[in-house]
Amino acid sequence: MEPVSADKPRENCGIVGVFGHPEAAKIAYLSLHALQHRGQEGSGIVTADGEQVYRHVGLGLVNDVYSDPGIFDQLRGHIAIGHNRYSTTGSPSLLNTQPILVNCKSGPLALAHNGNLVNYRSLRHILERSGSIFQTTNDSEVILHIAARSKAPTVEEQILEALRVVRGAYSLVFLTTDRLIAARDPYGIRPLALGRLGNAVVVASETCAFDLIGAEYIRDIAPGEMISFDSKGERTYRIGTVPKTAHCIFEFVYFSRPDSQIFGEYVDKTRRKLGKNLALEQPANADIVISVPDSSNTAAIGYSRRTGIKYDIGLIRNHYIGRTFIQPSQKVRDFNVRVKFNPVGGVLRDRRVVVVDDSIVRGTTLRRLVQMIRRAGAREVHIRVASPPIKHPCYYGMDFPTQDELIANGKSIEEIREYLGVDSLGYLSLEGLLGAVPNEERGYCTACFSGEYPIPITEKVEKLALEKEVSIREI
Amino acid sequence: MEPVSADKPRENCGIVGVFGHPEAAKIAYLSLHALQHRGQEGSGIVTADGEQVYRHVGLGLVNDVYSDPGIFDQLRGHIAIGHNRYSTTGSPSLLNTQPILVNCKSGPLALAHNGNLVNYRSLRHILERSGSIFQTTNDSEVILHIAARSKAPTVEEQILEALRVVRGAYSLVFLTTDRLIAARDPYGIRPLALGRLGNAVVVASETCAFDLIGAEYIRDIAPGEMISFDSKGERTYRIGTVPKTAHCIFEFVYFSRPDSQIFGEYVDKTRRKLGKNLALEQPANADIVISVPDSSNTAAIGYSRRTGIKYDIGLIRNHYIGRTFIQPSQKVRDFNVRVKFNPVGGVLRDRRVVVVDDSIVRGTTLRRLVQMIRRAGAREVHIRVASPPIKHPCYYGMDFPTQDELIANGKSIEEIREYLGVDSLGYLSLEGLLGAVPNEERGYCTACFSGEYPIPITEKVEKLALEKEVSIREI
Amino acid sequence: MEPVSADKPRENCGIVGVFGHPEAAKIAYLSLHALQHRGQEGSGIVTADGEQVYRHVGLGLVNDVYSDPGIFDQLRGHIAIGHNRYSTTGSPSLLNTQPILVNCKSGPLALAHNGNLVNYRSLRHILERSGSIFQTTNDSEVILHIAARSKAPTVEEQILEALRVVRGAYSLVFLTTDRLIAARDPYGIRPLALGRLGNAVVVASETCAFDLIGAEYIRDIAPGEMISFDSKGERTYRIGTVPKTAHCIFEFVYFSRPDSQIFGEYVDKTRRKLGKNLALEQPANADIVISVPDSSNTAAIGYSRRTGIKYDIGLIRNHYIGRTFIQPSQKVRDFNVRVKFNPVGGVLRDRRVVVVDDSIVRGTTLRRLVQMIRRAGAREVHIRVASPPIKHPCYYGMDFPTQDELIANGKSIEEIREYLGVDSLGYLSLEGLLGAVPNEERGYCTACFSGEYPIPITEKVEKLALEKEVSIREI
Amino acid sequence: MEPVSADKPRENCGIVGVFGHPEAAKIAYLSLHALQHRGQEGSGIVTADGEQVYRHVGLGLVNDVYSDPGIFDQLRGHIAIGHNRYSTTGSPSLLNTQPILVNCKSGPLALAHNGNLVNYRSLRHILERSGSIFQTTNDSEVILHIAARSKAPTVEEQILEALRVVRGAYSLVFLTTDRLIAARDPYGIRPLALGRLGNAVVVASETCAFDLIGAEYIRDIAPGEMISFDSKGERTYRIGTVPKTAHCIFEFVYFSRPDSQIFGEYVDKTRRKLGKNLALEQPANADIVISVPDSSNTAAIGYSRRTGIKYDIGLIRNHYIGRTFIQPSQKVRDFNVRVKFNPVGGVLRDRRVVVVDDSIVRGTTLRRLVQMIRRAGAREVHIRVASPPIKHPCYYGMDFPTQDELIANGKSIEEIREYLGVDSLGYLSLEGLLGAVPNEERGYCTACFSGEYPIPITEKVEKLALEKEVSIREI
Repeated sequence: MEPVSADKPRENCGIVGVFGHPEAAKIAYLSLHALQHRGQEGSGIVTADGEQVYRHVGLGLVNDVYSDPGIFDQLRGHIAIGHNRYSTTGSPSLLNTQPILVNCKSGPLALAHNGNLVNYRSLRHILERSGSIFQTTNDSEVILHIAARSKAPTVEEQILEALRVVRGAYSLVFLTTDRLIAARDPYGIRPLALGRLGNAVVVASETCAFDLIGAEYIRDIAPGEMISFDSKGERTYRIGTVPKTAHCIFEFVYFSRPDSQIFGEYVDKTRRKLGKNLALEQPANADIVISVPDSSNTAAIGYSRRTGIKYDIGLIRNHYIGRTFIQPSQKVRDFNVRVKFNPVGGVLRDRRVVVVDDSIVRGTTLRRLVQMIRRAGAREVHIRVASPPIKHPCYYGMDFPTQDELIANGKSIEEIREYLGVDSLGYLSLEGLLGAVPNEERGYCTACFSGEYPIPITEKVEKLALEKEVSIREI
Repeated sequence: MEPVSADKPRENCGIVGVFGHPEAAKIAYLSLHALQHRGQEGSGIVTADGEQVYRHVGLGLVNDVYSDPGIFDQLRGHIAIGHNRYSTTGSPSLLNTQPILVNCKSGPLALAHNGNLVNYRSLRHILERSGSIFQTTNDSEVILHIAARSKAPTVEEQILEALRVVRGAYSLVFLTTDRLIAARDPYGIRPLALGRLGNAVVVASETCAFDLIGAEYIRDIAPGEMISFDSKGERTYRIGTVPKTAHCIFEFVYFSRPDSQIFGEYVDKTRRKLGKNLALEQPANADIVISVPDSSNTAAIGYSRRTGIKYDIGLIRNHYIGRTFIQPSQKVRDFNVRVKFNPVGGVLRDRRVVVVDDSIVRGTTLRRLVQMIRRAGAREVHIRVASPPIKHPCYYGMDFPTQDELIANGKSIEEIREYLGVDSLGYLSLEGLLGAVPNEERGYCTACFSGEYPIPITEKVEKLALEKEVSIREI
Repeated sequence: MEPVSADKPRENCGIVGVFGHPEAAKIAYLSLHALQHRGQEGSGIVTADGEQVYRHVGLGLVNDVYSDPGIFDQLRGHIAIGHNRYSTTGSPSLLNTQPILVNCKSGPLALAHNGNLVNYRSLRHILERSGSIFQTTNDSEVILHIAARSKAPTVEEQILEALRVVRGAYSLVFLTTDRLIAARDPYGIRPLALGRLGNAVVVASETCAFDLIGAEYIRDIAPGEMISFDSKGERTYRIGTVPKTAHCIFEFVYFSRPDSQIFGEYVDKTRRKLGKNLALEQPANADIVISVPDSSNTAAIGYSRRTGIKYDIGLIRNHYIGRTFIQPSQKVRDFNVRVKFNPVGGVLRDRRVVVVDDSIVRGTTLRRLVQMIRRAGAREVHIRVASPPIKHPCYYGMDFPTQDELIANGKSIEEIREYLGVDSLGYLSLEGLLGAVPNEERGYCTACFSGEYPIPITEKVEKLALEKEVSIREI
Repeated sequence: MEPVSADKPRENCGIVGVFGHPEAAKIAYLSLHALQHRGQEGSGIVTADGEQVYRHVGLGLVNDVYSDPGIFDQLRGHIAIGHNRYSTTGSPSLLNTQPILVNCKSGPLALAHNGNLVNYRSLRHILERSGSIFQTTNDSEVILHIAARSKAPTVEEQILEALRVVRGAYSLVFLTTDRLIAARDPYGIRPLALGRLGNAVVVASETCAFDLIGAEYIRDIAPGEMISFDSKGERTYRIGTVPKTAHCIFEFVYFSRPDSQIFGEYVDKTRRKLGKNLALEQPANADIVISVPDSSNTAAIGYSRRTGIKYDIGLIRNHYIGRTFIQPSQKVRDFNVRVKFNPVGGVLRDRRVVVVDDSIVRGTTLRRLVQMIRRAGAREVHIRVASPPIKHPCYYGMDFPTQDELIANGKSIEEIREYLGVDSLGYLSLEGLLGAVPNEERGYCTACFSGEYPIPITEKVEKLALEKEVSIREI
């Protein structure tokens, strides 16, 4: 078995919260389904009915984890939070599948987290030294420990205390026996939207979750905002303020679904602009424009429109894909790319082809894709990338390969072109990228392209470092 | 739980055969993976190593059925046949999961079948009256019984005897302990392609299977041809001849993958022509052309090119789809269509939209899709269908709803337009369809559109009739 | 993993039939539970409600196969038959798990069989040559094929035709959509009892099944009797007659549960007599009598009573036993016997011990048991066996190891004593055995001891021969 | 489904520890197998290889939890601890399945516990108030929290600090990445034995575990002793001292296996004495003595020997028992007792029967058993109980029904006799019980009989109280 590598950065998760719906668990489940692209390793839901708290987590896709309808009879209550976890390298583990649920003095407290804290190691060591016991290797668990130690009288204030200590990217939902709390870091790095479904409140990483459940999108949870929902109503708290937001610009480039609205705009609309700006900056002399489906489709259409080169479907994506494939011992050439994409001979043969891709991480998959396109008869292959070269790691929740593996880290454009084996290669500039996103003046995090980190990195931050360090394996 | 209806006809299966590969089971498995679109209810592989025969079948998608790599250690041998079964209404059953494997006087004999026999009921009754015992409710099993009763000296001649008695659509692969036999009915209704993978022979319903395993496409198994492969070589037999072939034209319209070659042409190329002919016959006054993804993508591009109306992506398809979804008791509006498609607000708002669909069966899904598109803000919705109205049942292996449920059976175009709630509706003509397919003169089956059945229907043929009649349920 | 060998002959199955109970499946399930000792590899139930037939089979113990209570909602109807299959060597297979269920001209027909046919190979070859297709490698399937080919007007007469052709040991239950049929071979080799549960009829291999479900034992199905139960009542048929019955005497020695009545007597009572006769024939000079639990308990008590030597519990049996155990690479001494039995040091130390065992097959387990007893401190070990030496294979449904492996085949008593490493060894004589069983004059099969086969063996009969020959493996 | 109630107190668990064996996990697994009678709800093993810690837990019997041999490839290392959990009422939960494993400042720390703490609620509330987060509802978890907060320099001293704070019954095994620690409360309430297997050390609740793995029994871990094993050797610590031990006398009456040595004696030997003392105190005028198998077998033999009344097997126990049974809606009479026991008609009919039982808790099962024995034809039924009436709850790890349900709590012997419907009833006196156990002068806990609690009960102690209170449910 060999894992099918997407060669794309991996997001760390999608989250959802529901308050006031008689079937909160089902609403959470459907929302997680719509957010499946943000995490495919595992999923979990915790619900509450005012008195009891119920939890179900599992490894695999949403449909696998909740395949037994009986689960929903047991996940009782009108409050729910849910989480999809992304696929790590190494064996997946139930231990780290969120929502995390613990008992503390105020009773059960559950949390689901999208993002990454940059000072959790220091905090964890401080907590451990004074006697805290950790059950996961998630950075998120420190939030619960700090809240559990707070002397503040309400759970909201206990959590606020914790959020004022941790630093990094976080969109969070908390659940207690009788309330739902949603919070977003002051930089607004990851998205978090607020919606209504009849009398119920729903929060979710992306608005596509609202579309599936028929909820209405109200607004985003503001950067630095925490809201608590209980039977008496809602109450807003302020975590802190920063001069400028730092929305993750990569959400527009690749992560979010095109049919979602994030940071105040439809993703699809921004991607079309990325394609158009790319066309202006990096035109090509070619017969057809194709995309690497599906994430680059809209950018490719934008590119086609602006250049006037015909858009066509040159690659078919296999959608029945799972995580692993069993290969013959005598390996099939290009297998890892073939299981995902098949070239359409009739479209590619004898054509000069522009391939629009949203981004390049290691370039390994794209290289094999190019070879496959050439073997299908393309006369020329021109790569156009709808974002700048990725040169720096993300410490705020994107999971890149190590910096050394980033193809643009240390290689010139010409060297990359040569590695990919294409006739020409063009990236969108950072200016072109910023020119396409909405409300650019409010501030975006472009660290993976520019190296400018909005939140200082003062300790080694590596998503799986702790997992390696802590040395526990669930079997 | 509620099944997610595709509102498309269902194909009865994809088949594959391998001879001469040391890991025949893995090659079959990968081919079945590529043919997943032809059957998603269950899958099975039978292998042979010259002495023993090994069988593994299961319900679900290919990746589920063969998820344990240990299976391939046990599916030994250099010969394999495999089968994907389509999704029936009613509870799926292992009983009917192919390949069927029986013991008869010549030893183990296995079969996988794509198509449908039209005289199996009469044959089955004759066989039962003279003492045959049936283990499945598949039409295919009669072939094995007739072969088992033959006095002919070789298994090839025994099978030939059977194939000369049965009537209907069949692409078949058989396996014995030491040989692979492939056969196709004289009308050539369903596709069946022959390829080479090094020294091994591969046959598969569509050539996209060859692409995944890196095999080379040689030619189609000819209508009326049977070939037997064993360690001494191959040998060709002729089942019978008919004046004209009757290739299923619906394979081009919907079933086959766009990256496959069938009946001598790339499917994708034909679909683009369907879109172009549709544009000529049924132009529209609109701002954008969108497709119902993914089956109509190429036709929509063809339509866009010929009309000059811009192609855009107005619907996002959810690819993490399973067969069933758990809904809240208070149903979500448009749920069944929302779990499959989400409209892209930014693309549709205030636009006059042409929606290209490949075909309409009952129209129920399309109607809800139209409502969803309208709610997303489209100003006008114009449906263009890349095939003629479907008015007649298929007796050759497509699984339609009952004739009464076919929307075009009894409703005028205007009535359908009204039912769908669109501003205009246009179908491609039968001439337009025939004008797009390759080698039209060789003959196509257009019965679902025209009612002209190339093979006479002399008994009630209903795919599940026997299943109901025989009254056995596996639990 | 290493199979835990019982070193006892294996029975081929327990069967049950129910007619006229609204929850026939549950009654069958409970009966199979009581008959678990007759077959532990797999279990199956087929039910009928007058119109439909329902089947559920699985591998493992009864509680595993029917662990999901939902199964009983689906196994509808007032008629049921069930079957427990014994544990074969080699990988167990669903293919051969009974009841067998087929479709033939009279509709669905199911069968469960305890026993073994001695002419099934000839019959199978005849049937195959004239075109019959076999789906299992069970000897039982020939009965269905012959019945299916019969021209007789009723299913009872069709079955009778078959039963008059097959030869061997059979206790059978058949099920059609509206009737239950029970039959027993003219020699009455295997037991089959008839009971009443309110208005319902129950048949079962042993009466202990009646005790569990609260049914009343009426009588045995007579040798050569076939009874059919339908909504109009019951009807008796005669298969044939033989001068003398041939009840399997080994049912008393080992197979049947002590709390069952078979062949007209409580098993427990006969076993106590075996112990007493053994005491008379083979006294011993010892301090305590212990049994190899649990099958020899009653015989040991009988032996203790007649000799006056104190009965004690010197071996504890581990009852949480499964089929396989995972061992360390560095094997534990006596492991295979230790997982089943643990010696009680306080009882055995410094004692002269008589160990009563019901029978010896290969002697391998007993030998290791003796070593373990010695290591626990026993001063002398005397084996007393409550049946004669086993020297001949059984062709009527007991599964012995091959004749070569039978320790008494070729070894003298003294040689066996030496092999076992005991101070003395004494077997019960055939006369002593016959003197203990009820109605001895009616006739018993003692072939495994005496070599006198009541039904002539005219072809090679080996339980798994066909399985090997037919060369199909389910994975 | 209806749980099959044993109507016996339930022990809280069996534990095992291994140090210095290359396949420590397999040794732990086999030991847990031998200790299956001490806990049947779930099982878990944690191993360590000096650097990493590995954990596997599951619900069900040992063979179910470790059915996949691949588990042992992953449970690496030369150190292991294991735990079998008893069957609680209510749904079993993975959350509480031990060994508990946490991360604290000294690294991973795992624990398995047999016994019950009597001051854990107070301790837990103190810990929660100062910020500790609990992951389970086990009383055992407080030990880990107190150790985690200790400022002591070594893990041994940290654990000692905790053990000096907790009060109650505990036999414990701890595991870190490089050591095994075993400890037993100063009262020695639960057993814990130390053995050697080659160069490896093994500790286990009962010596029957040593027999299965071929280890040699060295001695018991002394009351109040803690031993730590690492690569450098072993080191002994003293937890504290008390004037007198308080061995649980019920371990001899019912819990421990007859082939184990506990508190310095073979259980089987003590049980035989119990039967003899019972014979002296409570003779009977009867024809046979039978036991309620298997736990009363030895006592019944002792009773038979001393009275001279013949011992016989009047009840057959069904050993294929699982936890639940599916019954027909129309309940079978005596079903719950029938699934466990079947009376042997031939033994009981017309006899005056003494039934020896080890103890009576609620009496419900015994009452139905008596009815069944009467219906099987017994002329008289005399119950003799090999322990005194149980009147008081256990706070040290036995799980009784509530005090109100104890039949001897509030009912006189005559009332109990009447309730049971027997001709006579006799219990062993407390003196008779104490006269049978070894080293009586060292001190036994007889609280359930006498109400004299050796450790003061200062807070409400109810095994599942916390589980109810904490209000978290895993689904």
